[in-house]
Amino acid sequence: MAPVKVFGPAMSTNVARVLVCLEEVGVEYELVNIDFKAMEHKSPEHLKRNPFGQMPAFQDGDLLLFESRAVGRYILRKYKTSEANLLREGNLTEAAMVDIGIEVEIHQYYPVISSIVYECLFNPAMYGVPTNQKVVDDSLEKLKKVLEVYEARLSQNTYLAGNFLSFVDLSHFPFTFYFMATPYASLLDKYPHVKAWWDGLAARPSIKKVTAAMVLPLKA
Amino acid sequence: MAPVKVFGPAMSTNVARVLVCLEEVGVEYELVNIDFKAMEHKSPEHLKRNPFGQMPAFQDGDLLLFESRAVGRYILRKYKTSEANLLREGNLTEAAMVDIGIEVEIHQYYPVISSIVYECLFNPAMYGVPTNQKVVDDSLEKLKKVLEVYEARLSQNTYLAGNFLSFVDLSHFPFTFYFMATPYASLLDKYPHVKAWWDGLAARPSIKKVTAAMVLPLKA
Repeated sequence: MAPVKVFGPAMSTNVARVLVCLEEVGVEYELVNIDFKAMEHKSPEHLKRNPFGQMPAFQDGDLLLFESRAVGRYILRKYKTSEANLLREGNLTEAAMVDIGIEVEIHQYYPVISSIVYECLFNPAMYGVPTNQKVVDDSLEKLKKVLEVYEARLSQNTYLAGNFLSFVDLSHFPFTFYFMATPYASLLDKYPHVKAWWDGLAARPSIKKVTAAMVLPLKA
Repeated sequence: MAPVKVFGPAMSTNVARVLVCLEEVGVEYELVNIDFKAMEHKSPEHLKRNPFGQMPAFQDGDLLLFESRAVGRYILRKYKTSEANLLREGNLTEAAMVDIGIEVEIHQYYPVISSIVYECLFNPAMYGVPTNQKVVDDSLEKLKKVLEVYEARLSQNTYLAGNFLSFVDLSHFPFTFYFMATPYASLLDKYPHVKAWWDGLAARPSIKKVTAAMVLPLKA
């Protein structure tokens, strides 16, 4: 059987979210680069994969999927094993905790941590746009409030959805990884359970493999 | 068995998303009002239900849940019947289409349609803030691009995730309902398949029952 395909540059956080799911369930895949600077994501060929012209896209046989969290769910549902059961759909309470954690990641965590990463890393390195310190400072204040909730949660559970690794933890990894390359990485030291959670995640073979390709591009 | 409880004002779009799921699967519930103006959503009691102090929250016995789309998934998973199977988790492809549709609703549809609804309805009526027409105009342009994709999709399928009603359609309903009360409702006439989809949804007993309580509050 041909391996599944992931379309998008490996350094993209949304692509990384999909790749780490594939690594966790041990599925072979082909990564097909999409050249962002050449606007390849807006090409007719890619628009067939994703009508909004974004990345990643995913192919499994004739099935084309997009939206990284939807693709992640597909992978984790299809290739679920007794060792890797990262959606917990067979358990109503655990599945709800996974769903809550994903919504919190989307609505609370992502908007603030992505602002910091864009301002400190992506904008200067990729677009030659200097860091807007006010955006960084405002986002850091909001991030602290989210981290307080996470600290309380992780002082009672090993992982964000409970005492089991889930899609929630994996979905938080791409922007947390880049955040740890900003000047504000030491913020996590103030939240010891969050720090321990992150250190544990970062040491996973799946994440180490994916992050090896998450290098920031050269300056624009 | 005591009915499940939904905490939040009925006119809230996020509360309405949960209520329509309960109506579709025919589960009795108690709606417990949370007084937004009295800041009851930031009270210690509500923070136990939702550590981010937002609405709705949901209670089923001892289980407390929050985040409307996570609560919706819980309800539709727990009370699934052969007639009401709105997540399709037993079918890999259909479940993926539901997940994609929810992500598109979150990332593409909600940001633009909610801006229009806030500017035209909520801000003037609830906060005495006049409409910012530039925000409305910019959001309308973005909404058109989303509606083009939806029109293409709905010209091939009766519903957004396929030829079956799903959580995706239900999740789109609250802001679409309020959008139809703005001066821009006629925009949908340019997208005949979208218009027919909406008219069909709006005629469902579940949605008619929930929208009966979605009245805009008196002026601040």
